[in-house]
Amino acid sequence: VKITILGAGLIGGSIGLAAKARMDAEVTGWDPDQSACTVGKRIGALDLAADTIQGAVEHADMVFLAAPVGALATLARVALQAAGPDCAVSDVGSTKRALAELSSDGRFLGGHPLAGAEASGIEHARGDLFVGSSWYLTPTPDTRADLRRRLEDAVTRFGAKPVEIDPETHDRLMARVSHLPHVLANVLAREAARALDEHTEVAAAIGPSLRDATRVAGANTRVWSDIYLANRDFLVEAIDAASNELAMVRSALADADERAIANWNEQARSDRARLIGESAHVAPGPAQPAR
Amino acid sequence: VKITILGAGLIGGSIGLAAKARMDAEVTGWDPDQSACTVGKRIGALDLAADTIQGAVEHADMVFLAAPVGALATLARVALQAAGPDCAVSDVGSTKRALAELSSDGRFLGGHPLAGAEASGIEHARGDLFVGSSWYLTPTPDTRADLRRRLEDAVTRFGAKPVEIDPETHDRLMARVSHLPHVLANVLAREAARALDEHTEVAAAIGPSLRDATRVAGANTRVWSDIYLANRDFLVEAIDAASNELAMVRSALADADERAIANWNEQARSDRARLIGESAHVAPGPAQPAR
Repeated sequence: VKITILGAGLIGGSIGLAAKARMDAEVTGWDPDQSACTVGKRIGALDLAADTIQGAVEHADMVFLAAPVGALATLARVALQAAGPDCAVSDVGSTKRALAELSSDGRFLGGHPLAGAEASGIEHARGDLFVGSSWYLTPTPDTRADLRRRLEDAVTRFGAKPVEIDPETHDRLMARVSHLPHVLANVLAREAARALDEHTEVAAAIGPSLRDATRVAGANTRVWSDIYLANRDFLVEAIDAASNELAMVRSALADADERAIANWNEQARSDRARLIGESAHVAPGPAQPAR
Repeated sequence: VKITILGAGLIGGSIGLAAKARMDAEVTGWDPDQSACTVGKRIGALDLAADTIQGAVEHADMVFLAAPVGALATLARVALQAAGPDCAVSDVGSTKRALAELSSDGRFLGGHPLAGAEASGIEHARGDLFVGSSWYLTPTPDTRADLRRRLEDAVTRFGAKPVEIDPETHDRLMARVSHLPHVLANVLAREAARALDEHTEVAAAIGPSLRDATRVAGANTRVWSDIYLANRDFLVEAIDAASNELAMVRSALADADERAIANWNEQARSDRARLIGESAHVAPGPAQPAR
């Protein structure tokens, strides 16, 4: 099977490594920065580096677009034009509405693996990056059933669980469980840095809990600016909800309302327990092949 | 050396374990819930369980108050009354201004170890809980030099770094680097749980990054209600600063201002790098004994 990666970064490289190790695939890469493909070949994520998108795509059975969200729509159109009639084309973008209209082409099926790492770049790619994680797919009635099965099978072989979702629901959820957390991590990092400017004693206070809370702060700006902007309507809604909650807490604190503060904390406690409990028995994806 | 713990929970029990293992101390415990001391003896954190505060304190060389913040002021007054003239009395509270007036008694020296664990209760106590962490101390000109040295020595033997700070600076810092992160973790847990109520697909989205971001959500309500309320003035300031930052981001998103979003993310990126860098070379505490 021939797999093509357009965009040779952390995710694209990890797909290449997984495809070679777990599907015995021949992997071709293309990236506007040719040196990324050179690294990809060196680490064993790519067999071939193509000079053009057309050259990378024309003989592929499956194409993964692994570029920043803002570049995906154009990349997808070029890829669909160059790809053969039986080639499955998917992407790994963190927002899904922008590509929804491409689904009228039955070969296109949007995707989003919920995997990542603190460090970006193909040199940090790992063949097991997707093991145990969810991989959203956004099929429509137009999606070709055979190509959908091919993609679900590949995702499952990478170790991920395919999870079906529609683009709008996906983007609304991500605003609340991924994009808002990134925004708040940035806010915390900025606040702590301001405190550091005022008092050197703060250095002693930077412990594991602040590290955890700011782990995703200042994630790759090119990738995340695109995500924030592509999903800005739902993200604004999530920020408004968070701001309202903060205003409620602020008011309870200003009133020294002990009961309100205790109730609010208890609710957060049971909310988190429920989230962790749910994540322990995620529904299986729609089409996991029998073992 | 005789050490007394008033309050047999995670922190009190960990002090007991550390004092026995690292100082060969005889450790006496008292807790309003006698069963906590029974557990403390079973796990080896306490040698003796006292029936009264007075009985626990009267022969001690050092007393650690390890109760929720709201109970500390009363507990400290009773302990200072019962303690001998050469007994050092300290606490482990997460806010420090409420006890500042006790420092007119030269035997009292406020403290705050920056250590904790997700699980509370003495059954989760660990003798190495403080290893590598900072332990704030708030000496004043009234603090007796010999008792201060005794405390700093104990803290150092527990594996922590004593760090001198004044109570007001401590509380302002904690509002920004600890209490605000807890508030925002609660906000995220509540938002994610609301999303879960609306869409079952969210279960698949609860990955490592949401776990990290909400790790401290809904921390022990009795402990944290006290902390939030005791530090509510500075916490309100920190919430206001976070709200202003959120309003700025919201406005940049609503305007689709790509440059503002990219700049903001880059600042958060360099802020976090600076925080992590600073934490790697924290200034040593004021009085680490020579090895």
